Amino acid sequence: MFKTLFENVQQQTPLVHCITNYVTVNDVANVLLAAGGSPIMADAPEEVADITSICTALNLNIGTLNSRAVESMLLAGRQANALSHPVVLDPVGAGASPFRTEATFRLLEEIAFTVIKGNISEMKTIHSGSGTTKGVDADISDAVTEETLEATVMFAKRLADRNDAVVAITGAIDIVADRDKAYIIRNGHPQMAKVSGTGCMLSAVIAAYCGANPEQLLDATAAAICLMGVSGELAYERMISNAAGTSSYRSYIIDEISKMSAETLEGGAKIESR
Amino acid sequence: MFKTLFENVQQQTPLVHCITNYVTVNDVANVLLAAGGSPIMADAPEEVADITSICTALNLNIGTLNSRAVESMLLAGRQANALSHPVVLDPVGAGASPFRTEATFRLLEEIAFTVIKGNISEMKTIHSGSGTTKGVDADISDAVTEETLEATVMFAKRLADRNDAVVAITGAIDIVADRDKAYIIRNGHPQMAKVSGTGCMLSAVIAAYCGANPEQLLDATAAAICLMGVSGELAYERMISNAAGTSSYRSYIIDEISKMSAETLEGGAKIESR
Amino acid sequence: MFKTLFENVQQQTPLVHCITNYVTVNDVANVLLAAGGSPIMADAPEEVADITSICTALNLNIGTLNSRAVESMLLAGRQANALSHPVVLDPVGAGASPFRTEATFRLLEEIAFTVIKGNISEMKTIHSGSGTTKGVDADISDAVTEETLEATVMFAKRLADRNDAVVAITGAIDIVADRDKAYIIRNGHPQMAKVSGTGCMLSAVIAAYCGANPEQLLDATAAAICLMGVSGELAYERMISNAAGTSSYRSYIIDEISKMSAETLEGGAKIESR
Repeated sequence: MFKTLFENVQQQTPLVHCITNYVTVNDVANVLLAAGGSPIMADAPEEVADITSICTALNLNIGTLNSRAVESMLLAGRQANALSHPVVLDPVGAGASPFRTEATFRLLEEIAFTVIKGNISEMKTIHSGSGTTKGVDADISDAVTEETLEATVMFAKRLADRNDAVVAITGAIDIVADRDKAYIIRNGHPQMAKVSGTGCMLSAVIAAYCGANPEQLLDATAAAICLMGVSGELAYERMISNAAGTSSYRSYIIDEISKMSAETLEGGAKIESR
Repeated sequence: MFKTLFENVQQQTPLVHCITNYVTVNDVANVLLAAGGSPIMADAPEEVADITSICTALNLNIGTLNSRAVESMLLAGRQANALSHPVVLDPVGAGASPFRTEATFRLLEEIAFTVIKGNISEMKTIHSGSGTTKGVDADISDAVTEETLEATVMFAKRLADRNDAVVAITGAIDIVADRDKAYIIRNGHPQMAKVSGTGCMLSAVIAAYCGANPEQLLDATAAAICLMGVSGELAYERMISNAAGTSSYRSYIIDEISKMSAETLEGGAKIESR
Repeated sequence: MFKTLFENVQQQTPLVHCITNYVTVNDVANVLLAAGGSPIMADAPEEVADITSICTALNLNIGTLNSRAVESMLLAGRQANALSHPVVLDPVGAGASPFRTEATFRLLEEIAFTVIKGNISEMKTIHSGSGTTKGVDADISDAVTEETLEATVMFAKRLADRNDAVVAITGAIDIVADRDKAYIIRNGHPQMAKVSGTGCMLSAVIAAYCGANPEQLLDATAAAICLMGVSGELAYERMISNAAGTSSYRSYIIDEISKMSAETLEGGAKIESR
């Protein structure tokens, strides 16, 4: 199901405007290039609307938020909405502080997002206006497991309906849903949690995939998640065979994305629909 | 002496709030994960006290300081003090500009630090209110050598006494001291100076070790320094055998930290007490 | 022609003050160390003039510009001019938004640059006050090819004359010129375009080379470009033989810079003068 989605990215080289945190921004830029897109980072209120206008998609990530960035996100988001560009929200750490939570609510209120991607804790914060977040990782008690899977799929569909967006809940098992349909994805490797920024990279790749496939937003989001997951699996094998560690693993993940073929992606994806 | 200290970090996964420079922040995040901790970066005045409250330790690094960050450091530092969280100061480039020096003095005046870590030039600035700093490297004339070692140990103990903190003076030979006791550490490799950020990584790892070992702050700081040093030695061997260069070396250092065992750390540490 | 230029950098370890974007800043720091220089990043208006004063060269890169950074660039630039330090401008994305274009014009008006380095689209923006920029890559229609080479050399010399600076136009073929003389450089590899920041790294290395060779600015700039290009070629061979991808390639480029000898640089340079 991914061949055309993948090839559209390679052929169109979608330019993705990222307003993102300074922790993982370099990985985000490099993963976009590796995936077949092109990055442009710009966060000054004076230029974000202009920059968004020359791009194909917008990626908003609140990882190291500040008040100026919120203003810029609103300006860029409104412009992207006006131009019907896909807009992705990665509400990193929503729930960890009132500042992040309120900024997230304000963004959701003023901007129509195409995809909202977060861990279960962040997504619960979005849903309920409450919740706890331990750093940027999901609360263990809130992890998506086989037992809680069915309920989480229902939750994802409801959240998608309420926000009129594709919802991606990431964790050991990933769930992607719109109001009608959900995918369950079992790619990736636990070691990815030892690398800072795999989540931020994923949001950016989702933006590239949606930018190049605007008519298939749910499938494009699922393809991006499978791409990250399959690459994480291949990179893990290389890490082990090289007796390497987590920093090399980080590089290998991006390497595998840059080397990916439609066939490897298709063959490696562990995806089912509900 | 490091086994329990090491295991406490692995088992507790201390969450470290970092307000740090944007040059090496990604390495800081990844080294914390590699060492067994967890990073959260947040520097907006609106949220730093909230973020610190959910963490175990606070790491303040003035590498790319600005006036807003100073304000945030003060807010976070006061909150960490109120909650008795360990607080680490890395006064990068103190002495290089009046702005950095004055910010350092203000931080020292208003916040009780648990550990202060810097090169000899930065530490002299802290001590005397004067001093020169060539970039972020110690002045050669101020290097800690076998000849100046005894005097530097005395200096470290005095500085520790005056600031009621553990003092870590890093260089070819590292010295860690509280008012009563000092360790001399001869791990690491000169090649580490060709990698940007090894000092910033170290401060963050010290914060993680102090967070997980709040009753043994001197030993926890020494353990973190040995961890960085032993990893730097192992990574150097791998760099040479791969005919690699300084960028791979950077990755290998973090790799070795992620692969470290208590036994390797214990066996590799070159530490003596004075 | 490069032996002395190369050795001057190794022996003098030029300290380069960088006010640069947060996307590629870590690579910029590490490439400066790899090339034999030393980085210091500082962008607060309160300290930039002080920091520049203790440095050998200044590198201004507008990749993630904001209004505070423009102010800091002006303060640092004036101080560098007053001290006769080389100042390099990398007008990343000039033409992509009025904000960047106007900031570029203002910098050019108020600061005397030693070297201006950009792709053909950015350089045309500088020349004409108009132009289009697709992200940070040159417009394909504006690419420097064998057919357009002679005209571009003329353009570079005119631009150099008008700005009283060395002008470096980068692309598949690189052109470096002052008002009288131009070099054409055919090093590098197309794969370098899949790595974020090779252009930013280059500006910083140019600043280091000009800082250590202030009497030979045109040749120093050419040497820096050849250094990046030859390293990119060697790194590409290593990437292929390791079956690696673009993230490893990024590391390998910096690795090769750190391993470079004057002989390898001299032997690998594909340079001709016009």
